[in-house]
Amino acid sequence: MIKVPGRKRVVITNVQPVIDEGQFPAKAIQCSPVTISADVFTDGHDEILVQIWIRHSTEKRWQQHPMVFENNDHWTYTFEPAFAGIYEFRIKAWTDAFRSWQKGLMKKWEAGMDIDVEIRNGIAIVQERSEQLKGSNRKDLQRWIREMETAMGTEQQLRLIHDTQLSAIMLQPELTDIPCTECKTYQLEADRQRALFSTWYELFPRSAGAGGKHGTFKDVAALIPSIRHMGFDVLYLPPVHPIGREKRKGKNNALIATETDPGSPWAIGAREGGHKSLHPELGSMKDFKQLVKTAVKHDMEIALDIALQCAPDHPYVKEHPEWFRWRADGTVQHAENPPKKYEDILPFDFESEAWESLWEELKSIFLFWIDAGVKIFRVDNPHTKSFYFWQWLIREIKNEHPDVLFLAEAFTRPRLMEQLAKAGFSQSYTYFTWRNTKEEIETYMKELSSAPLRNFFRPNFWPNTPDILPPFLSDGKENAHLIRLLLAATLSSSYGIYGPLFELGESTPVSGKEEYTDNEKYEIRQWQRDTYTKIREVLIRINRIRQQHTALQQYTDIHFLPVNNDQILAYYKTSADGSDTMIVVVNLDPFHPREATVTLPASIAGRQYHFAVHDLLSGDRYDWHTGENYVRLNPYDLPAHILHLQ
Amino acid sequence: MIKVPGRKRVVITNVQPVIDEGQFPAKAIQCSPVTISADVFTDGHDEILVQIWIRHSTEKRWQQHPMVFENNDHWTYTFEPAFAGIYEFRIKAWTDAFRSWQKGLMKKWEAGMDIDVEIRNGIAIVQERSEQLKGSNRKDLQRWIREMETAMGTEQQLRLIHDTQLSAIMLQPELTDIPCTECKTYQLEADRQRALFSTWYELFPRSAGAGGKHGTFKDVAALIPSIRHMGFDVLYLPPVHPIGREKRKGKNNALIATETDPGSPWAIGAREGGHKSLHPELGSMKDFKQLVKTAVKHDMEIALDIALQCAPDHPYVKEHPEWFRWRADGTVQHAENPPKKYEDILPFDFESEAWESLWEELKSIFLFWIDAGVKIFRVDNPHTKSFYFWQWLIREIKNEHPDVLFLAEAFTRPRLMEQLAKAGFSQSYTYFTWRNTKEEIETYMKELSSAPLRNFFRPNFWPNTPDILPPFLSDGKENAHLIRLLLAATLSSSYGIYGPLFELGESTPVSGKEEYTDNEKYEIRQWQRDTYTKIREVLIRINRIRQQHTALQQYTDIHFLPVNNDQILAYYKTSADGSDTMIVVVNLDPFHPREATVTLPASIAGRQYHFAVHDLLSGDRYDWHTGENYVRLNPYDLPAHILHLQ
Repeated sequence: MIKVPGRKRVVITNVQPVIDEGQFPAKAIQCSPVTISADVFTDGHDEILVQIWIRHSTEKRWQQHPMVFENNDHWTYTFEPAFAGIYEFRIKAWTDAFRSWQKGLMKKWEAGMDIDVEIRNGIAIVQERSEQLKGSNRKDLQRWIREMETAMGTEQQLRLIHDTQLSAIMLQPELTDIPCTECKTYQLEADRQRALFSTWYELFPRSAGAGGKHGTFKDVAALIPSIRHMGFDVLYLPPVHPIGREKRKGKNNALIATETDPGSPWAIGAREGGHKSLHPELGSMKDFKQLVKTAVKHDMEIALDIALQCAPDHPYVKEHPEWFRWRADGTVQHAENPPKKYEDILPFDFESEAWESLWEELKSIFLFWIDAGVKIFRVDNPHTKSFYFWQWLIREIKNEHPDVLFLAEAFTRPRLMEQLAKAGFSQSYTYFTWRNTKEEIETYMKELSSAPLRNFFRPNFWPNTPDILPPFLSDGKENAHLIRLLLAATLSSSYGIYGPLFELGESTPVSGKEEYTDNEKYEIRQWQRDTYTKIREVLIRINRIRQQHTALQQYTDIHFLPVNNDQILAYYKTSADGSDTMIVVVNLDPFHPREATVTLPASIAGRQYHFAVHDLLSGDRYDWHTGENYVRLNPYDLPAHILHLQ
Repeated sequence: MIKVPGRKRVVITNVQPVIDEGQFPAKAIQCSPVTISADVFTDGHDEILVQIWIRHSTEKRWQQHPMVFENNDHWTYTFEPAFAGIYEFRIKAWTDAFRSWQKGLMKKWEAGMDIDVEIRNGIAIVQERSEQLKGSNRKDLQRWIREMETAMGTEQQLRLIHDTQLSAIMLQPELTDIPCTECKTYQLEADRQRALFSTWYELFPRSAGAGGKHGTFKDVAALIPSIRHMGFDVLYLPPVHPIGREKRKGKNNALIATETDPGSPWAIGAREGGHKSLHPELGSMKDFKQLVKTAVKHDMEIALDIALQCAPDHPYVKEHPEWFRWRADGTVQHAENPPKKYEDILPFDFESEAWESLWEELKSIFLFWIDAGVKIFRVDNPHTKSFYFWQWLIREIKNEHPDVLFLAEAFTRPRLMEQLAKAGFSQSYTYFTWRNTKEEIETYMKELSSAPLRNFFRPNFWPNTPDILPPFLSDGKENAHLIRLLLAATLSSSYGIYGPLFELGESTPVSGKEEYTDNEKYEIRQWQRDTYTKIREVLIRINRIRQQHTALQQYTDIHFLPVNNDQILAYYKTSADGSDTMIVVVNLDPFHPREATVTLPASIAGRQYHFAVHDLLSGDRYDWHTGENYVRLNPYDLPAHILHLQ
């Protein structure tokens, strides 16, 4: 009949960060502060004690820490996860008769009231506790009672009431049978820092060669020093597997390929093998492993593209017909979004009754490449595969390899993108690619940097990709590239470009489309990679600034500033430890110089009135101050100020 | 190793309304629409089917209804609970191969593509389903297949594809083994309409008499017609139990009572009895029951005040010493908030080891009065009793008596007030009593009318109470009373006044305090209840308007309007069925006439440009229009327009 626990009185509610009732772990970064909070309170006026119990999932023992009262019944605990992986936590709380007594007694004493009975009440509380204890704790409490009873006058009694040893014993509620309230156990996942702060460069290995030859892993390895010099730390390669011959696409996505067309790297699998094989023209497994080592030597990582789909001649189709959906004419169902058809690509059937063997095989693909040294995967179109599969896969992989990261390449509806992030993807592609106006950018950044998204969705901003050449870039040419680069690199802590087209300013679209013409997806291109461009120069500078300024290594502490011109966007960011503040001002118009006043708040990063700012992009120094500051930005010169607050 | 279910692909998330992960039921109103919603989606491009399963907790069978797609993967289901009590619901969803096929086929056909294989795919889908079925469903599907196979040309095939009987069978996913996603079961509690729309009048029965005599239930019964005439439907009485003699308080809260002082009704219990007894001077149980009957006859209800606390001479103290906390000097711990003492009141000890017998006894108090005809309880200071106790008590009572309502008299911190509402209180006292400025009122109303609060916290606005005489009233006198009355009555669907002081404009404070002097809490007062006052006149009018206009019988559909004067507040409300719209404009300044323009949006309740409004308070009619409308409000005349949009 009575189902709720009777004597407990403390309520714990609104525990944060919690995703979907705890179905998914919230995300944190190793060695960076993360705050767990809750509203905790009891009826009436009694004091309460609030603890957090926390442990890494590989630990047996819980660590117990007091939570800190903030205001309005809100309690917090901030810590820095020492390790990557899953942490478990729960909150426990008790009414605190001892401290309620201490406080009440002091208030009465200060009001000049008789505290004799109060003192005897306190002795009774301590007596009761001592009877529940053993050993030295018990002895200490009993000694305290004797001292209290024989104390000479109120002065001495008040001193005894605040005895630190007494408090230390009395404030350990777990030593007693005081009714305890406990929330359920939630999880928090800590990733290594690159999950939050990373700078990506994408290139097609097939185009890394010279003299019209098919590029190889060795060619890519030779490019690594210059890519590192530009300031990138992740080199991301489109799929490196054998490319299907059946239904192969030709140049510019032609339905029929010629004899020499190399096909799309995303049409995976041929007689040479599937997802665990290498495209022979790129090189051997030894070459691939050597590339991974070269990257590591230059403090970079290789990110591999995993596209869970098959060309019609992928070995899986014959070996595991049960993993595909078959049509009435005896062919395998190809990918489609009617009336569009993608006949060179066969999706897996995630409703297959053989789902267990399918899942295990797909997992083994990731493990295969982890074994070859890969620690970052960029997953192609994850939103066309089962969300439950990703949740399982990523957990399975990270349980063994907590340092592995996954980037979700999903350009789709908001709820699906969010679900992938909840399911475990460490980073996500975003709508940044199409957010150009001041209002669009501010609105989107506020959404990304606030709860609930900030607790699980880490953005990676891409101004361009092999699939997307936004009109802003093709219309605005070099100036537009600079604007989008500087926005991506300073709004988000992770961003990437598809090169060398980006730094070369190459931006010829297929007529009427948001796509690059003569796309490397369907043919081998060769580039004058060492041509000097202003875009590369700015790229090197901004990446160096990002490396040196921790304010730019996060995206959640961002504040937009009032500017009296809709073409100028301004914001500032401060690092978690408060030591670094950057103010960024960008002219969003690639065609005209724009001027405005930027209004700084009364206090910014603890500074008031006048202070010096150093434009790390141009090298110029200015005197700025709270209130209005004049700016003029010429996109033909530099479209932004990247100001370090001194 | 694989723990998540494999073949299912649909995700159900963000189910609303859900309170604290489903720990508490969200609240709804009997026979009023309530919308349940969720984000539901699958990977890829397949169509999905989304159902809600719902039942009253007393029913065995689940009702199944399709949910409606709104936008952005958001699905809703709106229904009107037929009964009071707990409803259970859960959402189920499936991928819908049949409709995916139908849609894909039509798109291909419209694009001029060959659909021969598609038709054969569809026949295969129907064939597979037919094999899972029995009886007439199976026969119908097989007949459809024969017709499809022998159809003469595409025209006939397309007609067959949209056969309604076919769809009816194919769209019943529960007939098959298609993997189903199901959210957990949540609860929704429907209360009768008075939980949302009620008009309260509080009076002290002790002051209902004449000629200096102690008032009785019979005196109160005689007042009912006039209270009903003023437009009230709930008559709320402070505690009616025997009043303690020990530590009894005298007039104006004097520490020592004289022989004739009646004491505070909240100091409950004496030798005549406790919470199940009546104060002898008020009358007998028969008189009380007669009062309840008189109220019902006039379409009113009696709300009883339950204060779970004891005077020192309450019989419980001797009979159940285990329910109290004892001090070192052998006395029972009285209520206190150090250094304040309330020596005439003993709280129960909710940490008592005898909590079960305590809870059962307290429950029996409510059952006792329910048995005497009471269906509404105003609970005194519930935030000083265990939240878990309330959760248990209210559920226990309402399981047997779903029409019983509870009003929480808690003026305390926000989280505690919210927790009481979550725990089951049907209505709550609010901060309205101290929200006077335009910004304060707008902010507070927005909070109350938005999620999460709107899902569980129903406000009851009180301009005054026996404990609180706000300075706004005592300073602004009659004008201020009118302003606060009209605000309370039109912002919130439930409101109440403490009379007859309110309608008489009696507002003499204890010097320097927000309290009435010569408070009825400590003495018998007698009033010229039939004196004509402007306040009573406006009260009668506004209560009649509330009765006739459904827009004012709810508080969640409220929209504040731009006004170019901070002393004038304007808002409009529309009833759920859209048939009734009221615009309210209030001058918040009790001392000066104020003028302003009120800006109406481009479309208000479907009306544009010019329309007539009828001021139901003054009887005046105006032509208003979208855009700016001039108002001038003189608080010495009428401080508000209550405009019905015609």
